Amino acid sequence: MPSTPNFFDLHKAVLEQACQAVQERGHWTPYPEIPSGKFYGASAREEGLNAYESCLNKPFSLKGPEVISTTGIEISPYTGALGIHYDQYLAEDLVDAAKAALPQWRDAGPSVRTGVCLEILDRLNKRSFELGHATMHTTGQGFAMAFQAGGPHAQDRGLEAIATAWLATDGVPRDSLWHKPQGKHDPLVMSKRYHIVPKGVALVVACSTFPTWNTYPGLFASLVTGNPVIVKPHSQAVLPVAITVQVCQQVLVEAGFDPKLVTMAAEGEAVGIAQALATHKDVRLIDYTGGNAFGDWLSAHATQAQLYKEQAGVNTILIDSVANMKRAAQNLAFSLSLYSGQMCTTPQALLIPRGGIITDKGHMSFEEVSSVLCDTIKKFLSDPERAAGVLGAIPNPVTVRRLELAAELGRVVLASETHSMPGFKGAVYHTPLILSVDGADSVWQQEQFGPISFIVAVDSTEQGLALISNVVASKGAITFGVYSTDDAVLDAAESVAIEQGVALSCNLDSGVFVNQSAAFSDFHATGNNPAANAALTDPAFVAGRFAVVQSRRHTDV
Amino acid sequence: MPSTPNFFDLHKAVLEQACQAVQERGHWTPYPEIPSGKFYGASAREEGLNAYESCLNKPFSLKGPEVISTTGIEISPYTGALGIHYDQYLAEDLVDAAKAALPQWRDAGPSVRTGVCLEILDRLNKRSFELGHATMHTTGQGFAMAFQAGGPHAQDRGLEAIATAWLATDGVPRDSLWHKPQGKHDPLVMSKRYHIVPKGVALVVACSTFPTWNTYPGLFASLVTGNPVIVKPHSQAVLPVAITVQVCQQVLVEAGFDPKLVTMAAEGEAVGIAQALATHKDVRLIDYTGGNAFGDWLSAHATQAQLYKEQAGVNTILIDSVANMKRAAQNLAFSLSLYSGQMCTTPQALLIPRGGIITDKGHMSFEEVSSVLCDTIKKFLSDPERAAGVLGAIPNPVTVRRLELAAELGRVVLASETHSMPGFKGAVYHTPLILSVDGADSVWQQEQFGPISFIVAVDSTEQGLALISNVVASKGAITFGVYSTDDAVLDAAESVAIEQGVALSCNLDSGVFVNQSAAFSDFHATGNNPAANAALTDPAFVAGRFAVVQSRRHTDV
Repeated sequence: MPSTPNFFDLHKAVLEQACQAVQERGHWTPYPEIPSGKFYGASAREEGLNAYESCLNKPFSLKGPEVISTTGIEISPYTGALGIHYDQYLAEDLVDAAKAALPQWRDAGPSVRTGVCLEILDRLNKRSFELGHATMHTTGQGFAMAFQAGGPHAQDRGLEAIATAWLATDGVPRDSLWHKPQGKHDPLVMSKRYHIVPKGVALVVACSTFPTWNTYPGLFASLVTGNPVIVKPHSQAVLPVAITVQVCQQVLVEAGFDPKLVTMAAEGEAVGIAQALATHKDVRLIDYTGGNAFGDWLSAHATQAQLYKEQAGVNTILIDSVANMKRAAQNLAFSLSLYSGQMCTTPQALLIPRGGIITDKGHMSFEEVSSVLCDTIKKFLSDPERAAGVLGAIPNPVTVRRLELAAELGRVVLASETHSMPGFKGAVYHTPLILSVDGADSVWQQEQFGPISFIVAVDSTEQGLALISNVVASKGAITFGVYSTDDAVLDAAESVAIEQGVALSCNLDSGVFVNQSAAFSDFHATGNNPAANAALTDPAFVAGRFAVVQSRRHTDV
Repeated sequence: MPSTPNFFDLHKAVLEQACQAVQERGHWTPYPEIPSGKFYGASAREEGLNAYESCLNKPFSLKGPEVISTTGIEISPYTGALGIHYDQYLAEDLVDAAKAALPQWRDAGPSVRTGVCLEILDRLNKRSFELGHATMHTTGQGFAMAFQAGGPHAQDRGLEAIATAWLATDGVPRDSLWHKPQGKHDPLVMSKRYHIVPKGVALVVACSTFPTWNTYPGLFASLVTGNPVIVKPHSQAVLPVAITVQVCQQVLVEAGFDPKLVTMAAEGEAVGIAQALATHKDVRLIDYTGGNAFGDWLSAHATQAQLYKEQAGVNTILIDSVANMKRAAQNLAFSLSLYSGQMCTTPQALLIPRGGIITDKGHMSFEEVSSVLCDTIKKFLSDPERAAGVLGAIPNPVTVRRLELAAELGRVVLASETHSMPGFKGAVYHTPLILSVDGADSVWQQEQFGPISFIVAVDSTEQGLALISNVVASKGAITFGVYSTDDAVLDAAESVAIEQGVALSCNLDSGVFVNQSAAFSDFHATGNNPAANAALTDPAFVAGRFAVVQSRRHTDV
């Protein structure tokens, strides 16, 4: 064993608080979400920007096996090509390097591994401004969101996974004394040892929209339980992953471990490394976030591995009655606008009884509710600075094209507009497209990734609930919102949520949004509908990543 | 909610002790393993036999959907056909009945479900003599073993699964208060609820050798986590499962639940019900113990379900040096004889350096060690009463035929003998066949189910370890034993055990045997080699059987 800095003791207090938090599930975080010098140091903002800019137009070097080529095709929707080049490796070589590094990591045990992972997160937190810029320019998120989602909120999810994995491994004793009475004879006595062993090599296939937030849970859950990890970033969102892997490798080396316990498998225009890695016989764990095409392919082909995946879904809001129409509309306007509807939690369809609803402003017709929503969105996005910050930019031209074509999918009640992005010459933002359709029309039940939402006329609240139940069962969903002043309706919505395995938010009309999911408190996805087969972070997300191997021998008492 | 007897409170003390036991993993059990009136009541022995005999030659009735036919082909290797007939149902109807029963069971919550399961185990324990006879006559085990393995030891494994599942669900809070400070503004406050929800319908495919021991972990883990269970017994070993399902249904009804939460899918000569159930879209959990043919089929076809399986393996013993040759040989003689080698934990190959080994009797040649082992087995089985009790009878003619043919597989150093079974006219028992082969010969690396073992000559201890490492990696294993007076060899064996995911027993020469696995202390299998993808009972065995669904709403503090 190398003589490692005692990162476990150093971060023990944070671990203990995190373990308490995941078991109590109130509000808690050690990572300030406000991008302020007050928390991160007076010079952090400027240093973060400089650090990001100093990465541009040059190679970004990481430890790995033999380099076979380089790639780099990231384009910022704000500023153009990043010009960063990353090394590429053979899948076989990446797996071999991981396997070579495994025994020392496995034998170090859960507490040493957990200490190393906590130190990695601590250092990532200190680089949150840099990660914020890297996330902004690869995902298109506005800076404030990119800082939070790419920095502290992702770190929260990583820490949640560490704490959950620690609790699972810590529940298994390291040894025991087995003392079995034998009546008048001497007892049988055995000493037993229990080893936490990894499943093998782990692969994380990261997504383009949340390259750190969706990566950290699998990365850290696999590391704590002893598995080396290969991260395959999306070719448009490599830098946030590369910075993460760099920090992992730095801490691993300082702790006396092989840096190749965490490597990055960059992919360029020519795809194939993810497929080769995912089907390698020694890759035993795969975390995947992304579209259904590759998710379905993984389920069919990566049968040697345990797969944790999150893919497409259709999130819905049911509006039965509203206690404060203005505030509800403001809340929904933000939810539909945030990151141009590119969150896996963004509502796609708002179901409203065609006969109208009861509100604090009296009965409102379907059209009136629709108008209030559209007007609120319009007003909310009328300030270009605010609109640009909330909406961000759309990096993928396919999403922009989808938005253009989507106007044909229903009656347009709010047209999407394209505006210049303040501060970034040539860049643009797109306001949401809102379409009105009938519940019987199936178009709202197909995922339309991007700022495209449907206001759906249904016969009644009951029919709306039945439609939502069906669409969650068949297409999957991560979020489901309901507005009602009637407890019976809230209860019925809760029953649908339980039945179909989707998280429910009731009457959000304040500073919490249906598309937000707070680590340590909210579970993200459930694993019980087609949108995901796993949840961040429940016991099942960590328990399958390790095995227990025991030995026993007779001993004297 | 029905008004249920408070089984949870009734059995709370046992649950608490069981939870402590699974976390400490010392010796513990609430179910006496000695088939004595002292523990089970003076009349228990006679009542158990009567209860068993009163089942024979008539229909055994259970609750289920519409009956489509009956079946019953069990043949006792001691007394002939049991003549019991069981109802058969359509797979679709069984799943529909389970789905109909699910919501009430789900909504009852973990503590009510756990209470019901604890009551079921308590009543099964009281029927241990009856279960012992049922197990003896379906599996061929001698009565003492059948009582233990079919009764209290199986109940231990069931209770271990209940405790592990309870700990996993109990670690998730039922609700929380999320209180997020907002600087100068009012805090954001939300109340949240967390529901433990099942994955769907569970299927347990039971085996012919341990119809209760290998069934109870999956059955109870699925029930505690909210899943209805369909048990599909092996057609030769139905009665122990039928008694179990009967007790489940009785307790469920008393507790106000649908008895069809646990049903039995009996299969006769015509197979197909297991395949139909295993691939049904609503069957989401499958527990399987049995051969590789159906295990591999399940992995390939039952892709909609989470599969927990245990199948074939090649268990090994490495003999490097021995501190007490006589006791070691006695220990091994028992291990190789018990239940005619039909345990998934029975050693199949004993690897010994061809140059001989150091023992307490000085250096012994390979042939001398082989002779001592064979002589000890012969002597141990020389008393027909003892031999019959330990060996039991072999119910499957295929196993007897395999034993007859196996004499061709190597040099016979101990021939199998067939003797009349004392007390059972026409019945026989078979003593073990021991073959001597070379390490380079691949024959010992193929599973030979039944009383067939190999003494394998290897170049050295190191080569023996390497061969064992390879065979565990390629064929799988549940047990691995080593005899050595050298700590370095024990350490090397432990490294192989860790690397290949197999449980290690060191220098067993007393009243513990390599093929025994004690619930609450020993993990049975690891999930890390081809013999099994799951372990009894680690956190992964229970965590994947439920999801957490949450709801949240603003609240006043």
